[in-house]
Amino acid sequence: MEVFVSAIAATLTTVAFVPQAIHIIRFKETRAISLQMYVAFATGVAFWLLFGFMIWNWPMIVANAITLALALSIITMKLRYG
Amino acid sequence: MEVFVSAIAATLTTVAFVPQAIHIIRFKETRAISLQMYVAFATGVAFWLLFGFMIWNWPMIVANAITLALALSIITMKLRYG
Repeated sequence: MEVFVSAIAATLTTVAFVPQAIHIIRFKETRAISLQMYVAFATGVAFWLLFGFMIWNWPMIVANAITLALALSIITMKLRYG
Repeated sequence: MEVFVSAIAATLTTVAFVPQAIHIIRFKETRAISLQMYVAFATGVAFWLLFGFMIWNWPMIVANAITLALALSIITMKLRYG
């Protein structure tokens, strides 16, 4: 049951960033996006990834690696579109 | 060491949403923000909160309760400012 709940949670908090990335790719506009938020968030996700390796939990490693990639792509687009 | 890494991770991925909320409050503009992202993310955080209660881990409960409140406030502002 705990595995089931955490799997739903990890999936949702990871895939959530896909519509945000698509939104930016489509509209090429990021004024309302906070760069500080994504820098802090990406750093935090990198620590969750490290934690996943430390406790060797592969769903945590996979979910955080994908979230980190999505957050970094949003940062790149924010820096590009301003 | 694992507690230390997870505490840093939880703090960063929670406080990250503060500058985003402040950014919206200041500029009253949310066009670049994806509503779909925040709905999926808030739902995922609610599941992480439930998971925190199931394994009775209070830092996880506190961090996710704060993140959920911040995500819901961003959704409210997105619905208001469009």
